Amino acid sequence: MADASSPPTDQLAAATLNNEVPKAQFSDRVPIRSIISRPDGGSGLAGLKARVGGWVKTGRKADKDAFAFLEINDGSCAANLQVIVEASLGELSQLVPTGTCIVVDGHLKLPPAGTKQKIELRADMVIHVGPVDPAKYPLPKMRLTLEFLRDFVHLRSRTNTISAVARIRNALAFATHTFFNKEGFLYVHTPIVTTSDCEGAGEMFQVTTLLSEAERLEKELLQNPPPTEADVEAAKFVVVEKGEVVSQLKAAKASKSEIAAAVDQLKISKESLAKVEERSKLKPGIPKKDDGKVDYGKDFFARQAFLTVSGQLQVESYVCALSSVYTFGPTFRAENSHTSRHLAEFWMVEPEIAFAELKDDMNCAEAYVKFMCQWLLDNCLEDMEFMADKFDKGCIDRLKLVASTPFIRVTYTEAVEILEEAVKNGKKFENEVKWGIDLASEHERFLTEVKFQKPVIVYNYPKDIKAFYMRLNDDLKTVAAMDVLVPKVGELIGGSQREERYEVIQSRIKEMGLPLEPYEWYLDLRRYGTVKHAGFGLGFERMILFATGLENIRDVIPFPRYPGRADL
Amino acid sequence: MADASSPPTDQLAAATLNNEVPKAQFSDRVPIRSIISRPDGGSGLAGLKARVGGWVKTGRKADKDAFAFLEINDGSCAANLQVIVEASLGELSQLVPTGTCIVVDGHLKLPPAGTKQKIELRADMVIHVGPVDPAKYPLPKMRLTLEFLRDFVHLRSRTNTISAVARIRNALAFATHTFFNKEGFLYVHTPIVTTSDCEGAGEMFQVTTLLSEAERLEKELLQNPPPTEADVEAAKFVVVEKGEVVSQLKAAKASKSEIAAAVDQLKISKESLAKVEERSKLKPGIPKKDDGKVDYGKDFFARQAFLTVSGQLQVESYVCALSSVYTFGPTFRAENSHTSRHLAEFWMVEPEIAFAELKDDMNCAEAYVKFMCQWLLDNCLEDMEFMADKFDKGCIDRLKLVASTPFIRVTYTEAVEILEEAVKNGKKFENEVKWGIDLASEHERFLTEVKFQKPVIVYNYPKDIKAFYMRLNDDLKTVAAMDVLVPKVGELIGGSQREERYEVIQSRIKEMGLPLEPYEWYLDLRRYGTVKHAGFGLGFERMILFATGLENIRDVIPFPRYPGRADL
Repeated sequence: MADASSPPTDQLAAATLNNEVPKAQFSDRVPIRSIISRPDGGSGLAGLKARVGGWVKTGRKADKDAFAFLEINDGSCAANLQVIVEASLGELSQLVPTGTCIVVDGHLKLPPAGTKQKIELRADMVIHVGPVDPAKYPLPKMRLTLEFLRDFVHLRSRTNTISAVARIRNALAFATHTFFNKEGFLYVHTPIVTTSDCEGAGEMFQVTTLLSEAERLEKELLQNPPPTEADVEAAKFVVVEKGEVVSQLKAAKASKSEIAAAVDQLKISKESLAKVEERSKLKPGIPKKDDGKVDYGKDFFARQAFLTVSGQLQVESYVCALSSVYTFGPTFRAENSHTSRHLAEFWMVEPEIAFAELKDDMNCAEAYVKFMCQWLLDNCLEDMEFMADKFDKGCIDRLKLVASTPFIRVTYTEAVEILEEAVKNGKKFENEVKWGIDLASEHERFLTEVKFQKPVIVYNYPKDIKAFYMRLNDDLKTVAAMDVLVPKVGELIGGSQREERYEVIQSRIKEMGLPLEPYEWYLDLRRYGTVKHAGFGLGFERMILFATGLENIRDVIPFPRYPGRADL
Repeated sequence: MADASSPPTDQLAAATLNNEVPKAQFSDRVPIRSIISRPDGGSGLAGLKARVGGWVKTGRKADKDAFAFLEINDGSCAANLQVIVEASLGELSQLVPTGTCIVVDGHLKLPPAGTKQKIELRADMVIHVGPVDPAKYPLPKMRLTLEFLRDFVHLRSRTNTISAVARIRNALAFATHTFFNKEGFLYVHTPIVTTSDCEGAGEMFQVTTLLSEAERLEKELLQNPPPTEADVEAAKFVVVEKGEVVSQLKAAKASKSEIAAAVDQLKISKESLAKVEERSKLKPGIPKKDDGKVDYGKDFFARQAFLTVSGQLQVESYVCALSSVYTFGPTFRAENSHTSRHLAEFWMVEPEIAFAELKDDMNCAEAYVKFMCQWLLDNCLEDMEFMADKFDKGCIDRLKLVASTPFIRVTYTEAVEILEEAVKNGKKFENEVKWGIDLASEHERFLTEVKFQKPVIVYNYPKDIKAFYMRLNDDLKTVAAMDVLVPKVGELIGGSQREERYEVIQSRIKEMGLPLEPYEWYLDLRRYGTVKHAGFGLGFERMILFATGLENIRDVIPFPRYPGRADL
């Protein structure tokens, strides 16, 4: 009975006794963050021993190759730790290339006066080297464009920018769960594979096993060709023959055992015929029905299935029982769109609140966005400073603004009036402004960036440009929908109060020319114990673009999927 | 400029001033949890006003129809609140059916001595009724089987069991994020759509737009048939004719403008020919290559794409830069399996730790499982008590045991010896026990339920039954893999130290008969700055089965997907 380790708390105690910096809980090394991200920059740890590991960002030999100076990073924070290795400890040429992984035991010491860092590590022993051949390494030290890095999604998290984005993304995800948990919302996993077609199958990916089944069958039929008509006839002939044998034996009053043996033979030949007949019907290719259409009854889920475009409709079934719920998961669009703002696979946060109206929905959206902004300021400032330095000077001020300023709220009608006024005063838009249009990105950005210079919620949109499930207002012209617009990205959130009145939603579905049948389950939520409820969706990558100031959505998701590309 | 609401903090202050129970942040009502889940059961709130909303669990009229007594539940906690409504406030017959949604304003009062609940609400006004026709409502008050409820996934969250499961599932998800965040792990969203085939395409769902594109084209060609050969010939003839006109005009030295007009005509006829020729090539059906195989170059991602079976390989690219990461997302298996333990879509938690070995991996797995168990005891006891009462008497004791007892750790070889010993002593297994077998569920459950009666980690498995990426031990016979076995479900976690040595992993891939090319990116992680790392996967639904004691995995995920079924 081997117990391979002592419990972590003992390790911690032992570490302190040994004059060492406490290790990470499930590793033998100290995260660089625990050294450098202290208020004193790590200087208070001088004299202590530590094992650290990381990847060399920059390395150089000095003092006639007596030492190597290595800036190493382990991803636990943006900052690097300087490690000094003496030539006697190892082959220094192997340590200095960018990308090399090293683990060293050493002791922390104060660097010479006048250097930027507050602490450095003098190595006592090199424990591990994961070398790099600089001639082959795809990510040399020079600055690489984000576009170039998209061809190396498996290595790009080693760069300062993509690792900062990873930490910011992680922080926003945890902020999301923390916010909704604090407010009593339950996290509901809505399905990824769906048979509810919410926004039109044209833009949905299909999920199927028919193609691979057809390929499997084709291969099998090549190896083992299906019986021909002649094979079937031959098998039939055997059955007739065996049948005749039985008849003859019976007529000849043969022994019971002889007859039984012949009957067994007949049975076997019948089974064999059945198999041959069944195999003779096998057709290569996708199974089709008599009308020539694909027979989805033969697909894995016995019907057409798609990747979800939104968890909203499904999560509504949970809000009508649990009052406050949210989803946070991947969603998909098969749009052939090559812009810097669209992905085929992206993550959405979709809260839904019962006993709530549009104003509650707006309050929730505003509180959530503010919470995320403040969270980044409190928990990710070092990474935000990196983004401000390299990409977008204003990104920290933008977070502060949004975290602290009440959002402006204007009706759609007011928004259109503001835009028309701007046009009168000489502002040029590519898209015409008039009541009834769907606001274009240029209109949204004008409102939030130019007119108000802060987040804006536009609400009560014309019903004709919005979905059937949005609650019809008493004017019968508008619906209780709202969009949250923020500087830099425009629309960040779209939401609405949902139509809870059975007759109204039924007639809205018909009015939009949609069939009722697929929505019967959704109508049940209004038939039985209906409740006022409201919700919204936040595009998670949009939020990261907003926070970081990056321009291309492909750089803020670890593994971007878009037309023609799904690496790894 | 309409600002539809005052900020929530003002609402709270106002509520207290008005002698009201504070409302939910984004709703006008008080969650029942805020009343009932206090240490005093709510009795301290007697005398305060409150607006509550919920769905009637049981309702009855009393005192010659002078009152209705309604037990209502809003999903915020397991307990119901009793609401008493006087006949003067509304049509009582409409309020009492199970499933009815009501919102009432009222005041809290102490119930008569001797009743179970500590507080009840006397209604002053009925604000909203969402009625139910009991003759049609699919979920009557009587106890329904979980199997029956699977046909009503859109309504089943209204039952005590499924809503308790939803709260337990939510708690475990939040515990997961809390644990890994606390330990410095970054949450990484690995892709759902993948072109890396990790465990064999046979069990993967394909993601495609080819079928819907083919259907779209077929429809289009029906409405607008493709040109025939005769149409193409006719178009060619027009081009020849127009060309001749130009030649004739030139020969006849016609005016420049006349010639130019004829050239324009020729150009138009050529364009028209090009279009006709292109359309004549359109073929209905799935696009095929010359060899008859499906032309996936025409698919959305320009190659075959699948739903992920695990985020491990992809997240390894992040651990080799960020040190401690985890994924938590949906994964898929197209297995035609109808058991109570398999789903086609399920959620997995997959942490990955750099600078770590198998013992660190086991420490992490043990700490994580213990953390979740303690979390449920601390945060979900009421729901756990419900599960203990209705389904599995031992479930709370099991959580306590796992939260407090060190997990047993045995090598695979020791485990096989224990099983062989048991066989010698008369224990019967369906599957033969000998070194080299993959442990069957019956073996795993014997170890954890009978032999040790606590969680067991089995490690160092024979290499031939494990994946290529698991680190080869020095004995060259076993790999550094581990499984965590727990009472009730058997295997809860599977993990391993990953093979970080380039030559070893390359030869392991070849040894297993796999092609190297698709793994080149994965090999890059070993080529450039390789690092020791380890990780594991926890089936999230398995954990919920373990916690709740439920028997069927289809009852612990909101929208179960399995062969033939993907409702909603």
